[in-house]
Amino acid sequence: MTPNVLFAAPDRLWARYQAPLTRALEEVGVSARLGPDAGPPEDVDYIVYAPHPGLQDFTPFTRAKAVLSLWAGVEKIVGNRTLTMPLARMVDAGLTEGMVEWVTGQVLRHHLGLDHVLSHQSGEWVQNVPPLARWRPVTVLGLGALGAACARALAALNFPVTGWSRTARDIPGIRCLHGEGGLAEALGSGQILVLLLPLTPETDGLLDAARLALLPDGAVVLNPGRGPLIDDAALLAALDAGRLGHATLDVFRTEPLPPSHPFWGHPRVTVSPHVASETRPESAARVIAENIRRGEAGEPFLHLVDRANGY
Amino acid sequence: MTPNVLFAAPDRLWARYQAPLTRALEEVGVSARLGPDAGPPEDVDYIVYAPHPGLQDFTPFTRAKAVLSLWAGVEKIVGNRTLTMPLARMVDAGLTEGMVEWVTGQVLRHHLGLDHVLSHQSGEWVQNVPPLARWRPVTVLGLGALGAACARALAALNFPVTGWSRTARDIPGIRCLHGEGGLAEALGSGQILVLLLPLTPETDGLLDAARLALLPDGAVVLNPGRGPLIDDAALLAALDAGRLGHATLDVFRTEPLPPSHPFWGHPRVTVSPHVASETRPESAARVIAENIRRGEAGEPFLHLVDRANGY
Repeated sequence: MTPNVLFAAPDRLWARYQAPLTRALEEVGVSARLGPDAGPPEDVDYIVYAPHPGLQDFTPFTRAKAVLSLWAGVEKIVGNRTLTMPLARMVDAGLTEGMVEWVTGQVLRHHLGLDHVLSHQSGEWVQNVPPLARWRPVTVLGLGALGAACARALAALNFPVTGWSRTARDIPGIRCLHGEGGLAEALGSGQILVLLLPLTPETDGLLDAARLALLPDGAVVLNPGRGPLIDDAALLAALDAGRLGHATLDVFRTEPLPPSHPFWGHPRVTVSPHVASETRPESAARVIAENIRRGEAGEPFLHLVDRANGY
Repeated sequence: MTPNVLFAAPDRLWARYQAPLTRALEEVGVSARLGPDAGPPEDVDYIVYAPHPGLQDFTPFTRAKAVLSLWAGVEKIVGNRTLTMPLARMVDAGLTEGMVEWVTGQVLRHHLGLDHVLSHQSGEWVQNVPPLARWRPVTVLGLGALGAACARALAALNFPVTGWSRTARDIPGIRCLHGEGGLAEALGSGQILVLLLPLTPETDGLLDAARLALLPDGAVVLNPGRGPLIDDAALLAALDAGRLGHATLDVFRTEPLPPSHPFWGHPRVTVSPHVASETRPESAARVIAENIRRGEAGEPFLHLVDRANGY
């Protein structure tokens, strides 16, 4: 009962994950053969996975009990028809914490007008007292683990928070809207909009010109979710027209964002180089190890992806 | 029973407070004569007060039941020997909320390295993933209403928070230290230090060269409390030596901060023009009116200043 665990991810990740994964497996009492080479595909019991060109066809892994993603987002693998075994997402407490810190920090940055303070350090004393958070409505699109945690943290700071999700949710202290009907109202409600939707065919390009037009004048857009949620050209047009106040973007259709992209250096755009929610190997390895332990013990896997919804 | 309420504060404040105070007094059912001229001093029942040169001698106000400060800080009046009647501070929910928002926003700004992100917008994609808040200890000096609220808000975001106060306090989730013995440990504990102490003879210049030397290398100092808590020259020396990472200051020994002051434009200093906690007339007027109602009903005043401690 020594399972073979294939580490199917770019080499740089193996360097970061080998020690934490080895330690985490020991901690849950699983003795496994672990590595980028785990023997013939038909002998592999678990696949620890991050997108890379070397593994596109899962057909040969006839015995694999599960594919365990190192990332929370699984859009690059969920549509793979050769992937017939269970697929688990990464759901890591550190991931949620990091996201809550980034979103709360960016919301407060815009709420308090910190950019203005930082750019006025030449000796002129001009007091711009910000309104209280209780007078600054914020909208969060997406009420999964990350969106709900961010909505709660913002509400705890007195921001009136509207949350929106595809299907109905109920979160105490948050005004929860859902479905196509609720989307227009959600977009019109927030002076600051936070995008934390999963990327699906339905959400690709969700924030297009028509929906951007629903945001209040001067609204700020924060995107720590997925780059393709936004129609880049439509966003730039709304910013250039002065309709929107600012966009702070952590994710992009192409990453790294090409140096020639108009987001760079744009006076109303802040480019954040995909740091809002970074999986930390120490905590992520524990999540992977726990799922392997469960598989060996015949217990249900945690964080399984609903293949119909795509997340 | 129509009390005379003297509004003893600079003219610009009367313009802002007349309507909210009139409304707030109506709301609590008190019919009062209110204004900067309330008749002869011996006929004045209450003094609504903010520091100004026109009122230094309280001796003629022989009938006044209380002096009601518009500000939370009363150091400019508490030592006035002619002030023999009760003195109440402003304790306004909006004041606390604004302070929590400013402190949380500034702590997250430094925690997330937002300044670095904002100054790197020229096309170079460099990922600096910040540590999680749970690995970033923060120390709050002062655990009064403002300090305790900030400490709680930071702890809710997973920052390990050490709080320090003159006398012992106990706040769930906060490591509370006190007295001279606890101060050195508190100063040595936080990568980010927040000053929210009242200004008293004991706290004037508290953060001097010796105490700054106790901070961890690279520590960040936030002062939204009182300007004189810090020895400016010692702080500048520690910043110039590279011992401390940054100081973000909202209050100063002289305000407005003179254009020639070395804090302006210093690469390791952010000057915030006293906006962290601004009394909003709408909410402050309700606090004043409630105390006048209490005085008229013979009930004890709220928020009385302990004259021995000075706050």
